[in-house]
Amino acid sequence: MQPINGNGVAKVLDSENPEFKKGDLVWGMTGWEEYSLITAPYLFKVPHADVPLSYYTGILGMPGMTAYAGFYEVCSPKQGECVFISAASGAVGQLVGQFAKLLGCYVVGSAGSKDKVDLLKNRLGFDEAFNYKEEPDLNAALIRCFPEGIDIYFENVGGKMLDAVLINMKVGGRIAVCGMISQYNLDEPEGVHNLTRLISKRVRMEGFLVSDYNHLYPKFLEMIIPYIKGGKIVYVEDTAEGLESAPAALVGLFSGRNLGKQVVAVASE
Amino acid sequence: MQPINGNGVAKVLDSENPEFKKGDLVWGMTGWEEYSLITAPYLFKVPHADVPLSYYTGILGMPGMTAYAGFYEVCSPKQGECVFISAASGAVGQLVGQFAKLLGCYVVGSAGSKDKVDLLKNRLGFDEAFNYKEEPDLNAALIRCFPEGIDIYFENVGGKMLDAVLINMKVGGRIAVCGMISQYNLDEPEGVHNLTRLISKRVRMEGFLVSDYNHLYPKFLEMIIPYIKGGKIVYVEDTAEGLESAPAALVGLFSGRNLGKQVVAVASE
Repeated sequence: MQPINGNGVAKVLDSENPEFKKGDLVWGMTGWEEYSLITAPYLFKVPHADVPLSYYTGILGMPGMTAYAGFYEVCSPKQGECVFISAASGAVGQLVGQFAKLLGCYVVGSAGSKDKVDLLKNRLGFDEAFNYKEEPDLNAALIRCFPEGIDIYFENVGGKMLDAVLINMKVGGRIAVCGMISQYNLDEPEGVHNLTRLISKRVRMEGFLVSDYNHLYPKFLEMIIPYIKGGKIVYVEDTAEGLESAPAALVGLFSGRNLGKQVVAVASE
Repeated sequence: MQPINGNGVAKVLDSENPEFKKGDLVWGMTGWEEYSLITAPYLFKVPHADVPLSYYTGILGMPGMTAYAGFYEVCSPKQGECVFISAASGAVGQLVGQFAKLLGCYVVGSAGSKDKVDLLKNRLGFDEAFNYKEEPDLNAALIRCFPEGIDIYFENVGGKMLDAVLINMKVGGRIAVCGMISQYNLDEPEGVHNLTRLISKRVRMEGFLVSDYNHLYPKFLEMIIPYIKGGKIVYVEDTAEGLESAPAALVGLFSGRNLGKQVVAVASE
């Protein structure tokens, strides 16, 4: 049986590939298992071991690069712009918000619990945040947070939230479509009704995949490592202990049970 | 009572504005009436009078500039790309298709009658065309015309057509959103369900308004006038005679009764 793949951090026990030797720490596509035989590696050496190794599943791995590429490359952000992020306390969203704050933007996030909203406002430095599950009218929530409209929407959820955002975009706004997690487990995706706003507001909406931006990883590290070491950016993880907790942790993502990046600790150093 | 405004061509009878003198031919925002008092002019002098004057409501006016800006500025087209245009025989669509053919693209249009499909294939040089009203499955029609997918979609209609296009876009495709005429007269716009394809295919979808591109008009004329005079581009108009025919002509647009750009001839030279 094929193991389930996922982004992980591991230590090389043996390798016939000259690029990897015993004892190397690596990150990339590993299996949901304690020991993996990796034959077609999407695998990188851990470049800095003086940070928590779990960061290579998050801020220093695929989610970090996703936030970096999505925000800086797709959103074309400018200082002072109004930025909205859905699923804002998640693996990617929490970083986009902090990048936007560092650039001098006004930043609002939505999330699905009081704890997440507290996290956004009190630990991650968002200007505003709201619990979408407690807002009877998403449009009203956005008008309250963005009386003059939204320049940039970092889209992680899709569906009703996107529809509400569309009627609150400013002229020349940009929507980076990173994910639409609210739609993935539906039999049929919800309809989005307000796309005519793309015309009147001249909005650009663009989907992206992080794999198109792998070449930027060194540039990303150059920026992010000093931010981490200087405490300018924090990263919140929700760690489930033991491989046996992985299935429940995965399922929990779809109901938003995790607070921050969901990590499964298979083993410790 | 305020007259209804619309894009028209007119002759100046008198003017207190030094930029216009008696006898000048002008185009721009005029009234649905035989004589207009224009106080806040969105009005330009006719730069070339050796073409049909009605062209300044179409190929040399707002629709022409819309096709030009939408195709060259928003779609980022390249030779050899696969281009799909909805409402392809309309005021804008017929030009986008001809621009794309001149660039060496493969071009397909959809329209709502056999006459329109004939026009696209036999007079306007489209590679393929289909009548969307006779296609039980729009997705199947697009797969038939674009076995390898669509690079560029010039969007004029919205709704179900957009949904079908989304599942046929190629990686890196672009959608220029010019209009969504199928949606304007609905109580609630239809839902669009396939937006997650923007992510997997890294598609850029961008709305635009021609008024943002007015500064390109001289450059546009430089390109289009030789094409018209050299017969490289044709422009199909559907002329209703007399101001009294204007209301029916307008209503007819929403059921697609017109063949080509709908013009109302209020008077002749």
